[in-house]
Amino acid sequence: MKEAEQFYLDDLHVGQRFTSGSYVMEAARMKEFAAEFDPQPFHLDEAAAEASVFKGLAASGWHTAAAAMRLLVTGGLPFANGIVGFGGEIAWPKPTRPGDTLHVESEIVEITPSRSKPHQGIVTVRGTMFNQDGEVVYLLTAKLLVPKRMSQK
Amino acid sequence: MKEAEQFYLDDLHVGQRFTSGSYVMEAARMKEFAAEFDPQPFHLDEAAAEASVFKGLAASGWHTAAAAMRLLVTGGLPFANGIVGFGGEIAWPKPTRPGDTLHVESEIVEITPSRSKPHQGIVTVRGTMFNQDGEVVYLLTAKLLVPKRMSQK
Repeated sequence: MKEAEQFYLDDLHVGQRFTSGSYVMEAARMKEFAAEFDPQPFHLDEAAAEASVFKGLAASGWHTAAAAMRLLVTGGLPFANGIVGFGGEIAWPKPTRPGDTLHVESEIVEITPSRSKPHQGIVTVRGTMFNQDGEVVYLLTAKLLVPKRMSQK
Repeated sequence: MKEAEQFYLDDLHVGQRFTSGSYVMEAARMKEFAAEFDPQPFHLDEAAAEASVFKGLAASGWHTAAAAMRLLVTGGLPFANGIVGFGGEIAWPKPTRPGDTLHVESEIVEITPSRSKPHQGIVTVRGTMFNQDGEVVYLLTAKLLVPKRMSQK
Protein backbone atom coordinates (compact mmCIF):
# COMPACT_ATOMS: atom_id res chain seq x y z
CA MET A 1 0.00 0.00 0.00
CA LYS A 2 1.20 3.48 -0.70
CA GLU A 3 2.10 5.69 2.23
CA ALA A 4 -0.25 8.54 1.51
CA GLU A 5 -1.44 11.26 3.86
CA GLN A 6 -2.40 9.98 7.31
CA PHE A 7 -5.19 11.70 9.21
CA TYR A 8 -4.96 12.21 12.97
CA LEU A 9 -7.81 13.23 15.26
CA ASP A 10 -6.62 16.86 14.96
CA ASP A 11 -7.10 16.73 11.18
CA LEU A 12 -10.71 15.56 11.20
CA HIS A 13 -13.97 17.49 11.26
CA VAL A 14 -17.64 16.52 11.15
CA GLY A 15 -18.83 16.43 7.56
CA GLN A 16 -15.41 15.52 6.16
CA ARG A 17 -15.61 12.97 3.36
CA PHE A 18 -13.35 10.29 1.93
CA THR A 19 -13.71 8.15 -1.18
CA SER A 20 -12.19 4.70 -1.63
CA GLY A 21 -10.84 2.88 -4.64
CA SER A 22 -12.91 0.10 -6.15
CA TYR A 23 -13.44 -3.64 -5.63
CA VAL A 24 -14.79 -5.99 -8.25
CA MET A 25 -17.01 -8.75 -6.88
CA GLU A 26 -16.00 -11.83 -8.86
CA ALA A 27 -18.38 -14.79 -9.08
CA ALA A 28 -15.71 -17.39 -8.32
CA ARG A 29 -14.54 -15.56 -5.18
CA MET A 30 -18.16 -15.01 -4.11
CA LYS A 31 -18.76 -18.76 -4.17
CA GLU A 32 -15.46 -19.57 -2.42
CA PHE A 33 -16.13 -17.07 0.34
CA ALA A 34 -19.65 -18.40 0.79
CA ALA A 35 -18.47 -22.01 0.84
CA GLU A 36 -16.14 -21.15 3.71
CA PHE A 37 -18.27 -18.74 5.74
CA ASP A 38 -21.87 -18.60 4.50
CA PRO A 39 -22.72 -21.87 2.74
CA GLN A 40 -26.29 -21.13 1.70
CA PRO A 41 -27.63 -22.08 -1.76
CA PHE A 42 -28.31 -18.50 -2.90
CA HIS A 43 -24.62 -17.63 -2.37
CA LEU A 44 -23.25 -20.81 -3.97
CA ASP A 45 -25.28 -21.77 -7.01
CA GLU A 46 -26.87 -19.71 -9.78
CA ALA A 47 -29.92 -21.95 -10.26
CA ALA A 48 -30.70 -22.16 -6.55
CA ALA A 49 -30.22 -18.41 -6.28
CA GLU A 50 -32.69 -17.75 -9.11
CA ALA A 51 -35.34 -19.62 -7.15
CA SER A 52 -34.56 -17.79 -3.91
CA VAL A 53 -35.60 -14.46 -2.41
CA PHE A 54 -32.47 -12.99 -4.06
CA LYS A 55 -33.60 -13.93 -7.59
CA GLY A 56 -30.01 -14.50 -8.69
CA LEU A 57 -26.57 -15.18 -7.23
CA ALA A 58 -25.82 -12.79 -4.36
CA ALA A 59 -22.62 -12.32 -2.39
CA SER A 60 -22.67 -13.17 1.27
CA GLY A 61 -23.28 -9.94 3.14
CA TRP A 62 -20.11 -10.71 5.09
CA HIS A 63 -18.12 -10.87 1.87
CA THR A 64 -19.53 -7.46 0.97
CA ALA A 65 -18.65 -6.20 4.45
CA ALA A 66 -15.11 -7.60 4.19
CA ALA A 67 -14.68 -6.00 0.75
CA ALA A 68 -15.74 -2.67 2.22
CA MET A 69 -13.13 -3.06 4.95
CA ARG A 70 -10.48 -3.74 2.31
CA LEU A 71 -11.47 -0.53 0.53
CA LEU A 72 -11.32 1.48 3.76
CA VAL A 73 -7.96 0.04 4.82
CA THR A 74 -6.32 0.48 1.42
CA GLY A 75 -6.79 4.23 1.20
CA GLY A 76 -10.52 4.74 1.64
CA LEU A 77 -10.17 5.96 5.22
CA PRO A 78 -6.53 6.97 5.80
CA PHE A 79 -6.50 7.28 9.58
CA ALA A 80 -3.23 7.26 11.47
CA ASN A 81 -2.59 3.92 13.24
CA GLY A 82 -5.14 2.24 10.95
CA ILE A 83 -8.79 1.40 11.35
CA VAL A 84 -9.57 0.04 14.79
CA GLY A 85 -13.26 -0.28 15.60
CA PHE A 86 -15.34 -1.38 18.55
CA GLY A 87 -18.44 -2.14 16.52
CA GLY A 88 -21.28 -0.39 14.82
CA GLU A 89 -24.36 -0.77 12.69
CA ILE A 90 -24.54 -2.47 9.33
CA ALA A 91 -27.18 -2.88 6.64
CA TRP A 92 -27.43 -4.46 3.22
CA PRO A 93 -30.15 -2.59 1.31
CA LYS A 94 -29.52 -4.51 -1.94
CA PRO A 95 -27.64 -7.67 -2.91
CA THR A 96 -24.14 -7.55 -4.38
CA ARG A 97 -23.99 -9.37 -7.72
CA PRO A 98 -21.24 -11.03 -9.78
CA GLY A 99 -19.22 -8.43 -11.66
CA ASP A 100 -20.33 -5.51 -9.50
CA THR A 101 -17.73 -2.77 -9.13
CA LEU A 102 -18.01 -1.36 -5.62
CA HIS A 103 -16.62 1.65 -3.83
CA VAL A 104 -17.16 3.26 -0.42
CA GLU A 105 -17.83 6.89 0.41
CA SER A 106 -17.28 7.78 4.05
CA GLU A 107 -18.31 10.76 6.12
CA ILE A 108 -17.25 11.80 9.62
CA VAL A 109 -20.46 12.15 11.63
CA GLU A 110 -19.18 12.63 15.19
CA ILE A 111 -15.90 13.25 16.98
CA THR A 112 -15.59 12.59 20.70
CA PRO A 113 -12.25 13.27 22.41
CA SER A 114 -11.52 10.67 25.07
CA ARG A 115 -11.65 11.96 28.64
CA SER A 116 -9.71 9.06 30.11
CA LYS A 117 -7.12 8.90 27.30
CA PRO A 118 -6.35 12.44 26.14
CA HIS A 119 -4.06 11.30 23.32
CA GLN A 120 -6.92 9.80 21.34
CA GLY A 121 -10.60 10.05 20.51
CA ILE A 122 -13.57 8.19 19.11
CA VAL A 123 -14.63 9.07 15.59
CA THR A 124 -17.97 7.90 14.23
CA VAL A 125 -17.83 7.26 10.50
CA ARG A 126 -20.71 6.48 8.19
CA GLY A 127 -19.59 4.46 5.18
CA THR A 128 -21.82 3.90 2.16
CA MET A 129 -20.91 1.30 -0.44
CA PHE A 130 -22.23 1.85 -3.95
CA ASN A 131 -22.28 -0.41 -6.98
CA GLN A 132 -21.51 0.76 -10.53
CA ASP A 133 -25.14 1.89 -10.96
CA GLY A 134 -25.00 4.15 -7.91
CA GLU A 135 -27.16 1.80 -5.86
CA VAL A 136 -26.37 1.44 -2.15
CA VAL A 137 -25.47 -2.17 -1.36
CA TYR A 138 -24.00 -1.74 2.13
CA LEU A 139 -24.02 0.76 4.98
CA LEU A 140 -21.68 0.80 7.94
CA THR A 141 -21.68 3.22 10.83
CA ALA A 142 -18.73 2.50 13.09
CA LYS A 143 -16.94 4.02 16.06
CA LEU A 144 -13.20 4.13 15.46
CA LEU A 145 -10.22 4.87 17.70
CA VAL A 146 -8.10 7.69 16.27
CA PRO A 147 -4.92 9.11 17.89
CA LYS A 148 -4.05 12.77 18.27
CA ARG A 149 -1.12 14.04 16.25
CA MET A 150 0.85 15.53 19.14
CA SER A 151 0.73 12.50 21.37
CA GLN A 152 2.79 9.99 19.42
CA LYS A 153 4.99 8.32 21.98
CA MET B 1 -24.57 -30.05 6.25
CA LYS B 2 -27.00 -32.39 7.88
CA GLU B 3 -30.69 -31.81 7.35
CA ALA B 4 -31.69 -31.34 10.94
CA GLU B 5 -34.82 -29.74 12.35
CA GLN B 6 -35.79 -26.54 10.53
CA PHE B 7 -37.53 -23.79 12.49
CA TYR B 8 -40.32 -21.76 10.92
CA LEU B 9 -41.78 -18.53 12.28
CA ASP B 10 -44.54 -20.57 13.91
CA ASP B 11 -41.96 -22.54 15.89
CA LEU B 12 -40.19 -19.55 17.44
CA HIS B 13 -40.80 -17.65 20.66
CA VAL B 14 -39.07 -14.79 22.42
CA GLY B 15 -36.42 -16.10 24.78
CA GLN B 16 -35.76 -19.24 22.72
CA ARG B 17 -32.08 -20.15 22.56
CA PHE B 18 -29.80 -21.96 20.13
CA THR B 19 -26.18 -23.05 20.47
CA SER B 20 -23.76 -23.48 17.57
CA GLY B 21 -20.88 -25.84 17.00
CA SER B 22 -17.35 -24.52 17.27
CA TYR B 23 -14.82 -22.76 15.04
CA VAL B 24 -11.08 -22.76 15.65
CA MET B 25 -9.35 -19.52 14.69
CA GLU B 26 -6.10 -20.64 13.06
CA ALA B 27 -3.17 -18.22 12.83
CA ALA B 28 -2.44 -18.99 9.17
CA ARG B 29 -6.05 -18.41 8.11
CA MET B 30 -6.21 -15.23 10.23
CA LYS B 31 -3.27 -13.80 8.31
CA GLU B 32 -4.62 -14.91 4.91
CA PHE B 33 -8.02 -13.38 5.60
CA ALA B 34 -6.41 -10.16 6.77
CA ALA B 35 -4.10 -10.01 3.76
CA GLU B 36 -7.15 -10.16 1.50
CA PHE B 37 -9.63 -8.00 3.39
CA ASP B 38 -8.02 -6.17 6.31
CA PRO B 39 -4.30 -5.73 5.63
CA GLN B 40 -3.26 -3.97 8.82
CA PRO B 41 -0.03 -4.88 10.68
CA PHE B 42 -1.76 -6.08 13.87
CA HIS B 43 -3.69 -8.69 11.85
CA LEU B 44 -0.71 -9.82 9.75
CA ASP B 45 2.43 -9.97 11.84
CA GLU B 46 3.08 -11.08 15.43
CA ALA B 47 5.81 -8.52 16.17
CA ALA B 48 3.83 -5.59 14.81
CA ALA B 49 0.79 -6.82 16.71
CA GLU B 50 2.73 -6.94 19.99
CA ALA B 51 3.54 -3.26 19.58
CA SER B 52 -0.05 -2.31 18.70
CA VAL B 53 -3.14 -1.55 20.76
CA PHE B 54 -4.00 -5.27 20.46
CA LYS B 55 -0.79 -6.39 22.23
CA GLY B 56 -0.61 -9.55 20.14
CA LEU B 57 -1.93 -10.97 16.87
CA ALA B 58 -5.69 -10.39 16.55
CA ALA B 59 -8.09 -11.64 13.92
CA SER B 60 -9.77 -9.08 11.70
CA GLY B 61 -13.15 -8.36 13.24
CA TRP B 62 -14.63 -9.25 9.85
CA HIS B 63 -13.01 -12.68 10.01
CA THR B 64 -14.58 -13.15 13.44
CA ALA B 65 -17.92 -11.97 12.04
CA ALA B 66 -17.64 -14.33 9.06
CA ALA B 67 -16.76 -17.23 11.39
CA ALA B 68 -19.86 -16.44 13.45
CA MET B 69 -21.97 -16.57 10.28
CA ARG B 70 -20.49 -19.96 9.43
CA LEU B 71 -21.46 -21.23 12.88
CA LEU B 72 -25.01 -19.88 12.53
CA VAL B 73 -25.50 -21.28 9.01
CA THR B 74 -24.10 -24.71 9.86
CA GLY B 75 -26.58 -25.55 12.57
CA GLY B 76 -26.28 -22.68 15.02
CA LEU B 77 -29.51 -21.05 13.91
CA PRO B 78 -31.55 -23.63 11.98
CA PHE B 79 -34.17 -21.39 10.40
CA ALA B 80 -36.19 -22.60 7.42
CA ASN B 81 -35.01 -21.04 4.14
CA GLY B 82 -31.69 -20.15 5.75
CA ILE B 83 -30.38 -17.00 7.35
CA VAL B 84 -31.36 -13.91 5.40
CA GLY B 85 -30.68 -10.61 7.13
CA PHE B 86 -31.18 -6.94 6.40
CA GLY B 87 -28.55 -5.74 8.81
CA GLY B 88 -28.02 -5.19 12.48
CA GLU B 89 -25.61 -4.15 15.18
CA ILE B 90 -22.19 -5.65 15.80
CA ALA B 91 -19.51 -5.27 18.45
CA TRP B 92 -16.14 -6.79 19.21
CA PRO B 93 -15.61 -6.48 22.99
CA LYS B 94 -12.32 -8.43 22.91
CA PRO B 95 -9.88 -9.55 20.19
CA THR B 96 -9.95 -13.07 18.77
CA ARG B 97 -6.55 -14.76 19.09
CA PRO B 98 -4.74 -17.60 17.29
CA GLY B 99 -6.01 -20.96 18.50
CA ASP B 100 -9.21 -19.60 20.02
CA THR B 101 -12.14 -22.03 19.91
CA LEU B 102 -15.29 -20.03 19.33
CA HIS B 103 -19.00 -20.76 19.50
CA VAL B 104 -22.18 -18.70 19.25
CA GLU B 105 -25.18 -18.69 21.55
CA SER B 106 -28.28 -17.08 20.06
CA GLU B 107 -31.50 -15.85 21.60
CA ILE B 108 -34.72 -14.73 19.96
CA VAL B 109 -35.43 -11.22 21.27
CA GLU B 110 -38.33 -10.07 19.08
CA ILE B 111 -40.78 -11.55 16.57
CA THR B 112 -42.72 -9.26 14.24
CA PRO B 113 -45.16 -10.85 11.78
CA SER B 114 -45.12 -9.02 8.46
CA ARG B 115 -48.31 -7.08 7.68
CA SER B 116 -47.59 -6.76 3.97
CA LYS B 117 -46.36 -10.35 3.54
CA PRO B 118 -48.43 -12.60 5.80
CA HIS B 119 -46.41 -15.73 4.96
CA GLN B 120 -43.31 -14.44 6.74
CA GLY B 121 -42.03 -12.33 9.61
CA ILE B 122 -39.01 -10.52 10.96
CA VAL B 123 -37.16 -12.18 13.82
CA THR B 124 -34.59 -10.25 15.83
CA VAL B 125 -31.82 -12.50 17.09
CA ARG B 126 -29.03 -11.63 19.49
CA GLY B 127 -25.96 -13.76 18.93
CA THR B 128 -23.07 -13.85 21.39
CA MET B 129 -19.77 -15.42 20.40
CA PHE B 130 -17.61 -16.79 23.21
CA ASN B 131 -14.03 -18.02 23.25
CA GLN B 132 -12.85 -21.12 25.15
CA ASP B 133 -12.47 -19.04 28.33
CA GLY B 134 -16.08 -17.86 28.24
CA GLU B 135 -15.09 -14.34 27.17
CA VAL B 136 -17.37 -12.53 24.73
CA VAL B 137 -15.45 -11.70 21.54
CA TYR B 138 -18.34 -10.72 19.27
CA LEU B 139 -21.95 -9.62 19.51
CA LEU B 140 -24.46 -9.51 16.67
CA THR B 141 -28.05 -8.37 16.83
CA ALA B 142 -29.71 -8.95 13.48
CA LYS B 143 -33.14 -8.82 11.92
CA LEU B 144 -33.83 -11.96 9.91
CA LEU B 145 -36.54 -12.95 7.46
CA VAL B 146 -38.27 -16.17 8.54
CA PRO B 147 -41.14 -17.88 6.67
CA LYS B 148 -44.29 -19.29 8.22
CA ARG B 149 -44.73 -23.02 8.09
CA MET B 150 -48.16 -23.09 6.48
CA SER B 151 -47.37 -20.79 3.62
CA GLN B 152 -44.88 -22.83 1.64
CA LYS B 153 -45.80 -22.41 -1.99
